Amino acid sequence: MGAQTASPVITFLSDYGLGNEFVGVCHAVIARRCPAARVIDLTHAIPRHDVHTGAIVLRATLPYLPDAIILAVVDPGVGTTGARGRRAVAVRTAEPQRLLVGPDNGLLMPACELLGGVAEAVEVEHSRERLQPVSATFHGRDIFAPVAAALADGAALASVGEPLDAGALRRLHIPEAVLTATGLELHVLHADTFGNVILDGRFEQLGELGVELGQEVTVRRSGGGGEHQATVARTFADVHPGGLLLYQDGLGMLALAVNRGSAVELLGAERHDELLVTAR
Amino acid sequence: MGAQTASPVITFLSDYGLGNEFVGVCHAVIARRCPAARVIDLTHAIPRHDVHTGAIVLRATLPYLPDAIILAVVDPGVGTTGARGRRAVAVRTAEPQRLLVGPDNGLLMPACELLGGVAEAVEVEHSRERLQPVSATFHGRDIFAPVAAALADGAALASVGEPLDAGALRRLHIPEAVLTATGLELHVLHADTFGNVILDGRFEQLGELGVELGQEVTVRRSGGGGEHQATVARTFADVHPGGLLLYQDGLGMLALAVNRGSAVELLGAERHDELLVTAR
Amino acid sequence: MGAQTASPVITFLSDYGLGNEFVGVCHAVIARRCPAARVIDLTHAIPRHDVHTGAIVLRATLPYLPDAIILAVVDPGVGTTGARGRRAVAVRTAEPQRLLVGPDNGLLMPACELLGGVAEAVEVEHSRERLQPVSATFHGRDIFAPVAAALADGAALASVGEPLDAGALRRLHIPEAVLTATGLELHVLHADTFGNVILDGRFEQLGELGVELGQEVTVRRSGGGGEHQATVARTFADVHPGGLLLYQDGLGMLALAVNRGSAVELLGAERHDELLVTAR
Repeated sequence: MGAQTASPVITFLSDYGLGNEFVGVCHAVIARRCPAARVIDLTHAIPRHDVHTGAIVLRATLPYLPDAIILAVVDPGVGTTGARGRRAVAVRTAEPQRLLVGPDNGLLMPACELLGGVAEAVEVEHSRERLQPVSATFHGRDIFAPVAAALADGAALASVGEPLDAGALRRLHIPEAVLTATGLELHVLHADTFGNVILDGRFEQLGELGVELGQEVTVRRSGGGGEHQATVARTFADVHPGGLLLYQDGLGMLALAVNRGSAVELLGAERHDELLVTAR
Repeated sequence: MGAQTASPVITFLSDYGLGNEFVGVCHAVIARRCPAARVIDLTHAIPRHDVHTGAIVLRATLPYLPDAIILAVVDPGVGTTGARGRRAVAVRTAEPQRLLVGPDNGLLMPACELLGGVAEAVEVEHSRERLQPVSATFHGRDIFAPVAAALADGAALASVGEPLDAGALRRLHIPEAVLTATGLELHVLHADTFGNVILDGRFEQLGELGVELGQEVTVRRSGGGGEHQATVARTFADVHPGGLLLYQDGLGMLALAVNRGSAVELLGAERHDELLVTAR
Repeated sequence: MGAQTASPVITFLSDYGLGNEFVGVCHAVIARRCPAARVIDLTHAIPRHDVHTGAIVLRATLPYLPDAIILAVVDPGVGTTGARGRRAVAVRTAEPQRLLVGPDNGLLMPACELLGGVAEAVEVEHSRERLQPVSATFHGRDIFAPVAAALADGAALASVGEPLDAGALRRLHIPEAVLTATGLELHVLHADTFGNVILDGRFEQLGELGVELGQEVTVRRSGGGGEHQATVARTFADVHPGGLLLYQDGLGMLALAVNRGSAVELLGAERHDELLVTAR
């Protein structure tokens, strides 16, 4: 099974959803350029145009990925070019070496930082691999998928685009949880479909706050909104139904949930909201 | 194409939905442990935490599956351990021999019974294949997917966990349709997204009731609710638009539907409801 | 990697959705009959029973597909036979040669026309490849998937069904945009999940109307409804938020959209509606 285990893999993350043929057409385009490639759909449920959440999910899932080409498309600036526009890029990271393909809007950068930073970058807007004519709105199909497929097929990074200074790549400001004199300041990264509120803190930071598993904490939204008691817990079943818990979610982030309910509704929390967690 | 046709297959059923990265991350984890494995997503739309429906769908689709490792995760008890907790298991059935991986909450058992019962079982909570640290909430990724991948890669069942008495596995009570003096007592297994009401009876039981294709029957909900006339039919087009039909669904079960409408709405039927069907 | 690149591919389009196990079971059935086949899910989000939209999406995605067996199932007439029924068919096109499998309700025909027309056709209702007993409602699983898998496995078209006169295949009436003395008459093909209105015209037809990129046009719904100004644009960002634009969508069709809004809501447009676009 030697040849088989060597099948190149492309992981694919986007905000295309599954309510149309966008993802399927990208799969088809990849199969034409690199028939041996296997595509793993990481998720296509990134909220539309939400580069921020896309970047966080991509970074968070990175430790679980096989050695693969990483294709990621969350691209509100698609079709814009020139001074106000965004570039289309492919990059190689330093250590471990990985190839990533997507828009140059910051989406890829948090993942790249976990991979030792960008060692080589090319602009692929006019890649010889692109499908022509390039549409104004579907660069996933016309540029990103064929470039990823070419890389999966063994094409050199330098051959799929024009050299680009890695320092010129756009970075994304991602808020970070901070421990202050008043407590642990956290930000809402996203509210998932199950009503859970994913935060930007790490479980270890609770220890720095002097809080342990099983203890109660107070959760306050900055700029108004009520005050809530939450239990620091390992799992939903550790609190009674309807109870609020602060826990480590599957991707290693702090998160708030209501057992058999919705923390999103309870807290009225939205992305970018700031929350303050204090020991009681 | 010899090597290719020998690619190990994993079928994957869960309640994860496709609105997040859970399924994609499990695919990624499988690809890391067994690059040659192909994953068939049977469905990820089991209603959340609904072990009952998951078990029924798994059993009903079994006759259509290739020779595959069966991975199934509907797991409301994830993260609970000890006396009140649920185990994580992998089992081998007797005839035909199949390997199944999932929580020990009854989910796998109706399928196992169709496969000649459980011949060997192991507990995989502390499997050497698990990803560490094991999260409290995402055993699909940390335990079940890597164990299934190891089995797909040829690992022996005994090597992925600790021996477990097959008799200790939890069973699920699934109601069964019964023919009584008053009629055919059926239970609602689930109400699908098209508004069809799937029941636990078999088409043959209508014959025992003395009812044939084309005849009318009366449908009553136990414990109140109106009385409805339905036509025993092969297909939707056999009744006029808006008409209620009793038919054999694609998985071989009796079901109620309204042509171009919703039997779920018409009957107000919910899971576990009991219905009585009588000849007119 | 020779054997791998030769893996037969099946592209699969349907209206099954992903809210149940239908698609997964078809994948399983294909894997049993042709383990080497790879299935690309083109989309399963065709609106239920909407043969018209299915046919248009299939035709529009055709230029992006690899050399594959094309499986398409949008089948409101499933289970009907005889004079009022629909046939189940498999066809081979002339140039390029492709094999397509699906119901004979017009779904496959626009794609076939792009592929040089049908050179050979067989009826597969009683194919030796079908799963027995054939259910009344799930021919995707029982007939179409196994026939497509057999063809992927190298079976001859003539071996999977009974010869059928290609001239007897049902065609679909698809409206076509027309340039008249008053303007460009377009029809709504479908309203997508993002609120965009996909039309049946081609961008070139705007040139025939004497309209260029950046100009304003007037959009009117036939039979009432207001009058709207739209900008002919390349991309959403070319108009201010809330602005209506007329553009070429990713599949090459004219489409109306509202930047950060919904053209479907703004226009109240529904499938089959006729719109008149005139130069200002």
